[in-house]
Amino acid sequence: MNLTILETCKRARAASYEIAKISGEAKNAALCRMANALEANAEKILAANQIDVEAAKKKGLKAALLDRLSLDKKKIDNMAKELREVSALADPVGSIEKTWTRPNGLIIGMLRVPMGVVGVIYESRPNVTSDAAGICVKSGNAVILRGGSDAINSNVAIGEILRDALTGTGIPSDTIQVVSNPERTAAEELMGMRGYIDVLVPRGGSDLIKTVVEKSKIPVIETGTGNCHVYVCEDADLERAIPIIINAKCQRPGVCNAAEKLMVDASIAKEFLPKAIASLQEKGVEVRGDEETSKIVSSVKPATETDWYTEYLDLIITVKVVSGVDEAIAHINKYSSHHSDSILTASFDKALKFIKQVDSAAVYWNASTRFTDGNQFGLGAEIGISTQKLHARGPMSAQHLTTIKYFVLGRGHIRE
Amino acid sequence: MNLTILETCKRARAASYEIAKISGEAKNAALCRMANALEANAEKILAANQIDVEAAKKKGLKAALLDRLSLDKKKIDNMAKELREVSALADPVGSIEKTWTRPNGLIIGMLRVPMGVVGVIYESRPNVTSDAAGICVKSGNAVILRGGSDAINSNVAIGEILRDALTGTGIPSDTIQVVSNPERTAAEELMGMRGYIDVLVPRGGSDLIKTVVEKSKIPVIETGTGNCHVYVCEDADLERAIPIIINAKCQRPGVCNAAEKLMVDASIAKEFLPKAIASLQEKGVEVRGDEETSKIVSSVKPATETDWYTEYLDLIITVKVVSGVDEAIAHINKYSSHHSDSILTASFDKALKFIKQVDSAAVYWNASTRFTDGNQFGLGAEIGISTQKLHARGPMSAQHLTTIKYFVLGRGHIRE
Repeated sequence: MNLTILETCKRARAASYEIAKISGEAKNAALCRMANALEANAEKILAANQIDVEAAKKKGLKAALLDRLSLDKKKIDNMAKELREVSALADPVGSIEKTWTRPNGLIIGMLRVPMGVVGVIYESRPNVTSDAAGICVKSGNAVILRGGSDAINSNVAIGEILRDALTGTGIPSDTIQVVSNPERTAAEELMGMRGYIDVLVPRGGSDLIKTVVEKSKIPVIETGTGNCHVYVCEDADLERAIPIIINAKCQRPGVCNAAEKLMVDASIAKEFLPKAIASLQEKGVEVRGDEETSKIVSSVKPATETDWYTEYLDLIITVKVVSGVDEAIAHINKYSSHHSDSILTASFDKALKFIKQVDSAAVYWNASTRFTDGNQFGLGAEIGISTQKLHARGPMSAQHLTTIKYFVLGRGHIRE
Repeated sequence: MNLTILETCKRARAASYEIAKISGEAKNAALCRMANALEANAEKILAANQIDVEAAKKKGLKAALLDRLSLDKKKIDNMAKELREVSALADPVGSIEKTWTRPNGLIIGMLRVPMGVVGVIYESRPNVTSDAAGICVKSGNAVILRGGSDAINSNVAIGEILRDALTGTGIPSDTIQVVSNPERTAAEELMGMRGYIDVLVPRGGSDLIKTVVEKSKIPVIETGTGNCHVYVCEDADLERAIPIIINAKCQRPGVCNAAEKLMVDASIAKEFLPKAIASLQEKGVEVRGDEETSKIVSSVKPATETDWYTEYLDLIITVKVVSGVDEAIAHINKYSSHHSDSILTASFDKALKFIKQVDSAAVYWNASTRFTDGNQFGLGAEIGISTQKLHARGPMSAQHLTTIKYFVLGRGHIRE
């Protein structure tokens, strides 16, 4: 059945009021049922996915995208595992955060409640359908999922199975809806649904995110772009610095918390850069650099102004020699995407300055930037990593899909 | 000097990094200097305001708007008083909200920091220039103020005085900038300044807010519209109910937390409505009502569907007879602007249901809706009342213009 976007939104709003009433135990039981249902219906999901994969092959989709699109039994098991892990987290809603009494006797308090209706616009990975649905159920929200058209059959199949699994749980099946209309206009219509969708989360490449941020008339949480820096101070433990740089750049170069830039203090550049760059090149990394770097290591390619802004998502890194912590901070604040940046130093003073002044979601001292992740931070599965400052910054887990309401208790109070 | 919007934004960003380093004491001292400067330069402000008022009279501005635009010595004293009150609040930034240690030994913490650059787009009241600047300085943010073109001379004069007052405080004067370009396109250009402005707060009528929400490419906090309800249950203390209704409707009908709708349980409608409506009419309130209400009190005008959605900001109220708490909640969630709604009842169960299920920023039990206000809640001066769920809901004071950053402390940690 192909619902209009407006009808989908109305059903989501109605469902949001129902799931908001459900206890934490009931939501957790529902999440486990959802996990079981994915496992029990793996064949059905794989068959739908096969249709998407065949169509994508015919369209000539690139290998990396085909890989993201393709499901197998193991990926489905992981989706189920993820739902069970989310069910094990603490209930993010229902707590009273604070209460106070005003001089006139009014009692005021803050109650943590679900956001309401969450919209997720994403690209080719079908597992986002199940991951996002799980986080939204956990946080007591209804969710409208709009995946990439390449994955439409997979997403619809996963959505149907998850909806069916809600039967008998007290949670309406309309809590989870997959937009099955493949038209591009459907996504744009979603972005205009003021009053029906409380927050829109785009997940995917920078083009998708930019489109949603610019077109949406409803609040968006911007996620994802990571132009991350590692800065090595003259007093850093240089033995430990190279493994950190290699880890930040190479452990998984295609993700947003991978390092894209390396900065080194001028006073150690001659000693340190030849070793560091050789280690990176051994791992197959293309190294670019500013003039100073080129003078020290002739094999680096000259960096352009564009390089300093670029998130490569690839085995490329650009190196800059700086005069010290102040120049490093100024450079990061000018060029970074405000995601994750690390200082390697033995100095508490420099570390504190860096932590306070670098304007990023996560700021590291003596560690790889690769830890910016809901699970690594201990927050649970995430729906994205926010690089904006409003509402949620850094890994966004179930707790970030909640809001507060004020309650005010009087005894006939009127305002003078 | 007429800066371009881009240049204004660049200066604001640079200033934001400077004020972020300033101590709470220094910010408070600066706020007191700003207050003194307003008082000392009252004549200058009044002269600039006179130019705006004369121009507005020539343009034929309505009396209510002229009143909002006009300053006098008392209003300027109030602006100064407001700045001193803000200086007395606790510093909203710099606190470490939480720290925890991960199994691998990484220490993670959350540091409360300023948002960065706040944009405020507002209408004719020149006092917003000073109030918003004060809240932004308190919270360690730079602010770009774009007031209505009618108040341009007043706003520029106030801005210059506040900027001058920052000299010698350690806070750059570019922390406070008033956009003096009167063109409408200047506001639209501001709304496109992704990367320079972290959050945009529109303050004014619903048209202004709608325009900003729809056109902005940077995060917006939606403020203001209040279609507030008072619901009288059959078990309410009817003696206390009428003063609450009168207070909610009449104490200041032109503001967003005034009541626009009254709902009454059917079982007490015949007894209660004649008294309640007579009391309202005595106060000059035009009473509209649904069919049931009209049957009981013939003097009410029939309500249209539009009435249920309307924020009158005037001495008008629309009355509905409901079957009980469930219908009242459903009606509010369908028609309200999710601002402030009140239940009058002796029943804890009904009150709890109403508090939990009414999807509004502030939900009241046995009190007037007129208390939804930063000062009334004890949060300090506000920059607006948010009716969205992202980041800030309800009165937005200095603490709501802050965000967190994660800090991650390692000892050479790399991700496995």
